[in-house]
Amino acid sequence: MLLRQFIKNSSNPPLTPPKEGKLPPFGRVGVGQTSNFKTMKKELNIIGKSHQKLDGKERVSGKAVYGHDIELPNMLHGSILRAKYPCAEIISIDTSKALTLEGVECIITANDVDVNNIGYKRDHPILKKGTVNCNRDEIAAVAAQTKEIADKAIQLIEVKYKIKEGVYDPFEALKETAPRINEFGKGAEQFGNKNVAEYFHYEHGNLAEQKAKSKVIVKKRYELPRVTHACMATSNITAEFNNFDGRLTLWSSTQVPFLYQRDIAHALKMEPSKIRVIQPIIGGGFGSKLDMHPFEPICVLLAKKSGKPVQILYSREEEFLASPTRQPMVIDLTTGCDENGKFTFREVEIIKDNGAYTSWGATTPFVMMQSYSSLYQVPACKFDSHAVYTNNPFAGSFRGYGNPQATFSIESNIDLMAEELGMDKREIRLINANYKGEITGQGLHFKTCGAIPALKTVIEKSNYDKIMAAPNTGRYKRGVGLGSMLHVGGGAKIYRSDGCGTTLKLDDYGYLTIVTGSNEIGQGSETVLAMIAMEELGIPKEKIKVINTDTDVKPWDVGVHASRTSFVAGNSLLGAIKLIKEKLNNKASQLLNVKTNEWEYKDGSMLFNGQEIKLDKVAREMHFASPHELCTVNYFYEPPSRFQDKDFKGDVSGNYAFASQAIEVEVDTVTGNVQVLNVHVSQDVGRVLNPIGLQGQMEGGLATGIGYALTEEMIYEKGILKNPSFHGYKMLTSTDMPDVHFYPIETYDEAGPYGSKGAGEAPLIPTAAAIANAVSNALGVRFYSLPITAEKVLRALSEKKLETRNSKQETNKI
Amino acid sequence: MLLRQFIKNSSNPPLTPPKEGKLPPFGRVGVGQTSNFKTMKKELNIIGKSHQKLDGKERVSGKAVYGHDIELPNMLHGSILRAKYPCAEIISIDTSKALTLEGVECIITANDVDVNNIGYKRDHPILKKGTVNCNRDEIAAVAAQTKEIADKAIQLIEVKYKIKEGVYDPFEALKETAPRINEFGKGAEQFGNKNVAEYFHYEHGNLAEQKAKSKVIVKKRYELPRVTHACMATSNITAEFNNFDGRLTLWSSTQVPFLYQRDIAHALKMEPSKIRVIQPIIGGGFGSKLDMHPFEPICVLLAKKSGKPVQILYSREEEFLASPTRQPMVIDLTTGCDENGKFTFREVEIIKDNGAYTSWGATTPFVMMQSYSSLYQVPACKFDSHAVYTNNPFAGSFRGYGNPQATFSIESNIDLMAEELGMDKREIRLINANYKGEITGQGLHFKTCGAIPALKTVIEKSNYDKIMAAPNTGRYKRGVGLGSMLHVGGGAKIYRSDGCGTTLKLDDYGYLTIVTGSNEIGQGSETVLAMIAMEELGIPKEKIKVINTDTDVKPWDVGVHASRTSFVAGNSLLGAIKLIKEKLNNKASQLLNVKTNEWEYKDGSMLFNGQEIKLDKVAREMHFASPHELCTVNYFYEPPSRFQDKDFKGDVSGNYAFASQAIEVEVDTVTGNVQVLNVHVSQDVGRVLNPIGLQGQMEGGLATGIGYALTEEMIYEKGILKNPSFHGYKMLTSTDMPDVHFYPIETYDEAGPYGSKGAGEAPLIPTAAAIANAVSNALGVRFYSLPITAEKVLRALSEKKLETRNSKQETNKI
Repeated sequence: MLLRQFIKNSSNPPLTPPKEGKLPPFGRVGVGQTSNFKTMKKELNIIGKSHQKLDGKERVSGKAVYGHDIELPNMLHGSILRAKYPCAEIISIDTSKALTLEGVECIITANDVDVNNIGYKRDHPILKKGTVNCNRDEIAAVAAQTKEIADKAIQLIEVKYKIKEGVYDPFEALKETAPRINEFGKGAEQFGNKNVAEYFHYEHGNLAEQKAKSKVIVKKRYELPRVTHACMATSNITAEFNNFDGRLTLWSSTQVPFLYQRDIAHALKMEPSKIRVIQPIIGGGFGSKLDMHPFEPICVLLAKKSGKPVQILYSREEEFLASPTRQPMVIDLTTGCDENGKFTFREVEIIKDNGAYTSWGATTPFVMMQSYSSLYQVPACKFDSHAVYTNNPFAGSFRGYGNPQATFSIESNIDLMAEELGMDKREIRLINANYKGEITGQGLHFKTCGAIPALKTVIEKSNYDKIMAAPNTGRYKRGVGLGSMLHVGGGAKIYRSDGCGTTLKLDDYGYLTIVTGSNEIGQGSETVLAMIAMEELGIPKEKIKVINTDTDVKPWDVGVHASRTSFVAGNSLLGAIKLIKEKLNNKASQLLNVKTNEWEYKDGSMLFNGQEIKLDKVAREMHFASPHELCTVNYFYEPPSRFQDKDFKGDVSGNYAFASQAIEVEVDTVTGNVQVLNVHVSQDVGRVLNPIGLQGQMEGGLATGIGYALTEEMIYEKGILKNPSFHGYKMLTSTDMPDVHFYPIETYDEAGPYGSKGAGEAPLIPTAAAIANAVSNALGVRFYSLPITAEKVLRALSEKKLETRNSKQETNKI
Repeated sequence: MLLRQFIKNSSNPPLTPPKEGKLPPFGRVGVGQTSNFKTMKKELNIIGKSHQKLDGKERVSGKAVYGHDIELPNMLHGSILRAKYPCAEIISIDTSKALTLEGVECIITANDVDVNNIGYKRDHPILKKGTVNCNRDEIAAVAAQTKEIADKAIQLIEVKYKIKEGVYDPFEALKETAPRINEFGKGAEQFGNKNVAEYFHYEHGNLAEQKAKSKVIVKKRYELPRVTHACMATSNITAEFNNFDGRLTLWSSTQVPFLYQRDIAHALKMEPSKIRVIQPIIGGGFGSKLDMHPFEPICVLLAKKSGKPVQILYSREEEFLASPTRQPMVIDLTTGCDENGKFTFREVEIIKDNGAYTSWGATTPFVMMQSYSSLYQVPACKFDSHAVYTNNPFAGSFRGYGNPQATFSIESNIDLMAEELGMDKREIRLINANYKGEITGQGLHFKTCGAIPALKTVIEKSNYDKIMAAPNTGRYKRGVGLGSMLHVGGGAKIYRSDGCGTTLKLDDYGYLTIVTGSNEIGQGSETVLAMIAMEELGIPKEKIKVINTDTDVKPWDVGVHASRTSFVAGNSLLGAIKLIKEKLNNKASQLLNVKTNEWEYKDGSMLFNGQEIKLDKVAREMHFASPHELCTVNYFYEPPSRFQDKDFKGDVSGNYAFASQAIEVEVDTVTGNVQVLNVHVSQDVGRVLNPIGLQGQMEGGLATGIGYALTEEMIYEKGILKNPSFHGYKMLTSTDMPDVHFYPIETYDEAGPYGSKGAGEAPLIPTAAAIANAVSNALGVRFYSLPITAEKVLRALSEKKLETRNSKQETNKI
């Protein structure tokens, strides 16, 4: 991994939109240019230079306190009994034997609790009775003095089932004859089919007209597998319930603490404000902690019933079985272009395997439709998505939020159209690319746009020309493939507020505390916040503390999702800094008897016109001299995004991120193994805040993206997971990683802090698409389903006689 | 204990000052009257009615988490080796054997650490080398995997001493020939004597002139014992040091977290802001946690050296041996009055046994001189106090802060002057009593003053007349005695700020979080803060949370001392409430389209002119609608007190509290036992905020006061404590408590929240004085030293033939 290359290759080409039908000038990308963004005016000392994660040393040394490390006095340990069959009727549950086991403190089943259903569609009972709908279903839970006793007690609970025939294919579930899978589903009334959990429809433009205009129309079906986050820290929660005042404290890994309060409260019929959510260090989120899952209210119910704190920790196997997944789906995508290669329309039909219950994962069409409608210029678009109940486990949200799936289909179809039209795969992308100033059919407004520079950068840096021109005979075939992506870069207006609060305290000794509503799940946002404060207030890192782990203490924030944290929390912090500077400027001016607001903040001092005063002295004078105040301010930032209208139209984010990847692969035609050699990533991040942090996001994202493309898949047979371990479920490890070449594009978007955009999800979104295109370019064989395993490659090769690459399917025009 | 009587007897007599020389009208006290204090205008719903302590149920049920309950992963346990002799030279310390004990992780001695001396005069090494000066001296400390191992390791450390002759009497220590006790003491340079640790001189008025005017002059010596706080929770600390960023987290019982940061930092050569102080529930403070003690930096040093969290918990015996005490002293008090009984002067010389090191206890003259100069009208006063090093353990601060000692001497002398003058003991007090508007010789300004009403109330309620007139023959003699006191009621300007910050957050559901700088050490201030918020914002108690335990989170405050918390934190909260109401008023007016600031807050709603809007709705509209802000405010309150000048003159507190006690005793002349039958307390509390909380302060204070008067004494022989347990050290238990009759006086001081004054220390201040006077009135024998044990009573009775009470020494004139 080429960290040194990171800054050197940072590049920023001119941002003019391409002229209709004409390929923009192509060649070496230009140097950085600044926007009008106000903080651009001055030289930056901290922002743009690498700063280690605040908690980096604690993490690598094993000193970090994760949820698993929490210990409370008298704490019990909980275990959950799950369904033995993915589809069955529960005849009886007998807990009597388990209750007699020494050390067991309490057992709960659905009959013992007064709770609400959970999940996005409120179709998910926390504890199941009557029927079980998937193998993950929670039947009973035990709290005992040790985890071993709790696990043993679970084995002693006797459940009698009547086994039923399940439905594991969403197409089967859509049939008239299929049984109704989820008794709480409202599909029959809302969408005309009892097993439809959620349905989205979107359209813009004149589809018929655009179809008529099309020279080439490609219609393909894509199949996307079920993969999981496989967080290094398994799911965990510790709950302490105060029976006196009804207050609940949770040590939780949730990504969205304030929404979580509301979700737990709804589930347990409590008041949200009575729930305090504390976040220990989190060992991986990636979207998996956006939903509240049944084990969380179950833990609270055990704590309530036992009167003691209770902790539930998943084993690794349980994590595979019962933690969320990315939503598997079948995408039928039809796209067209005219004789010049200009895109005309996209028509999409998606059937998603919703599993037995509905999570936030069902709402991924919010993001997917955005890529279909607006990734490249799309005159007309029609989008339909059905999430269909099956007896499989339910999915959840996952970094990228539907976008890797959508992008895989879009970018594959683009290659296919280029091939059919006989057009260069680079050119077709460049002439259709998004541009600055564009307002898309869905209403997204690209006030800045690095799409073209990103594309051009990876095309150049990857030596696309050379690789594609090289002879490609013999056992090992090489190819390079392209993929681009569009994602929100300034949060997403999904809730009533997408904002974040900040409180700043400068103490008597010149130390700054940043109390931010935002939270850290490993993405490095707290480090970026500290850097912003260092930059603006001239306070060294060791004098800055970020507080972000306790809902009792911190101001409101909507949580970690939609690549929003550095954007929203950064802007919130900048607003608070403006306020604290006003206070400090006034006091310093008064103390030194000058009239100015132009104080410079440097090395713990305030400077103006040759005069200097220490920051801590100003803070103390504020505190100790009349009129006596503390140097504390509050600020709340709400991004300028808007709700989409009922037709899903509107400028939903503060800004938008663009990225392209050119990935070089080598395929072993004997083993079928696909080796990723080089990944060239160019991403419009607005502005690089913390290079090393961004590099981490790139590498982490790519590891997930490559795994999605090539190796990862949860293998289910009739609702039963066959590979619940790292032996069977193949994630990339550090030694599997290819060289990553990263070229950030800085477009200085006015909305973002220092011109930056959200960057966390983008790195994995176009990866599978680019790899699939690269494999196709290497072999002349296209894969419509992921992962592209060695087995699939071999099978495909055996079915098709290989052509050499330099055939009609690919011509180097440039 | 007569809780029911509490409110019924609340009374408020007229507050006119007495005319010179004339006894004010005496009889039944009047009813309450209000001042101009602005919050008095409206009817109060919450303030003045009893509210249970917020954490009361947790405490009584055993669920409260004290420092002793803290457990951290990998935590070690520390033990301290103390000096074997109170005065010796250390020849050698050998830790080698101890280090080989399995489970011992590290040992420190003075040679291993780079630290500063601690204590008010910086004369106290954290770990001792060279010489040991008292039996409490810390020689070495061990951190081990269990407390048992640590204690065993301590036994294995071999220290060789050369025993020296110690000095245990401050008068001996003042002699030329005495050895220098503390090598860091600056007495030789500063005060002309090597063993003087601290010296205070104060005077006002023309002493010679007033002496000449005096008809009666009484000169007496009073001897005050060493007593200890005997907190139910023994001293404790848990320290966790982060070697990566140099940050320290302490779970500590300190009363003054922000000053403690500074003290720990100075001791350990750290930055104060790098220290986070978290306060678990505290099992008794009473002033003992105002100083930082050696075990606290020692614990940090062990944590630093071992790289693991370390906890030190005192055993009960260690608590007696090594926790602070009230300062023992000898007071020579000369007082005079003219022929009408009007006081003329007071002249005081005090020798305090400072022990080997100097704590905050050495500064009690700040408070003592105030009582000598200003309790009753005092035309001239001269005050000298020497704190003298001895080889006894050092004292500390203790609820009342020197005032019980001063008041005992003052009130005893008053009785003696009355006896000599043949004047009624009530009358001499009433004609000299403090009055509203008085500015004393020291500059204290009594803007309100309940001194006379308090005196008159207890005189009436105690049936003083009847008891003193009753025949007093036989084995059991009865008497009633009077004592009054003056104490700060609105904090004390000792540090550069006596203020307190508050942050208020009203969340989307209408729940309020009060983040206060002040802290709760059991005194009930957080309950009062919640009550104020309930009163002002109409929010029910279950929707209010007080956060006050973490220096990282809360705004600055000077800490718990000087009976300041409800006063200063209450005013700070009222200031913050004013700000949050401005925000809420504006938003509600905008939402309901009215122009007013006159919103009424009631039952979670805002009301104006028949319109109503829910508080949570207003908060949500603020958050979710443009311009989007959170309902959060910050406020800092600094009381209107001033520093005293170099002569100790100035109005040092926001207001002043006055109290009188009339205590009825029965003495068994056969056993010498003194039984307290009834305590009548009347105290100017400004305004009663939480009756049940105030009652608790009264009862707790009186228990300490009665113990001080009759039973408690640490018995030292040549620097060695002979009674380090509750068997030998006799505290009152609940069954020993007499009936307490409490009559609050409400003077509605403008400075205090709702007119209130600090009330926490007052209850114990005049108790010993009143009991001593009662015993004297019962027996005709006076005691000049405390405690008045049965042994002392019997000895005195054997030395003096008893007269009946109705002799010349007491005449009922009224």
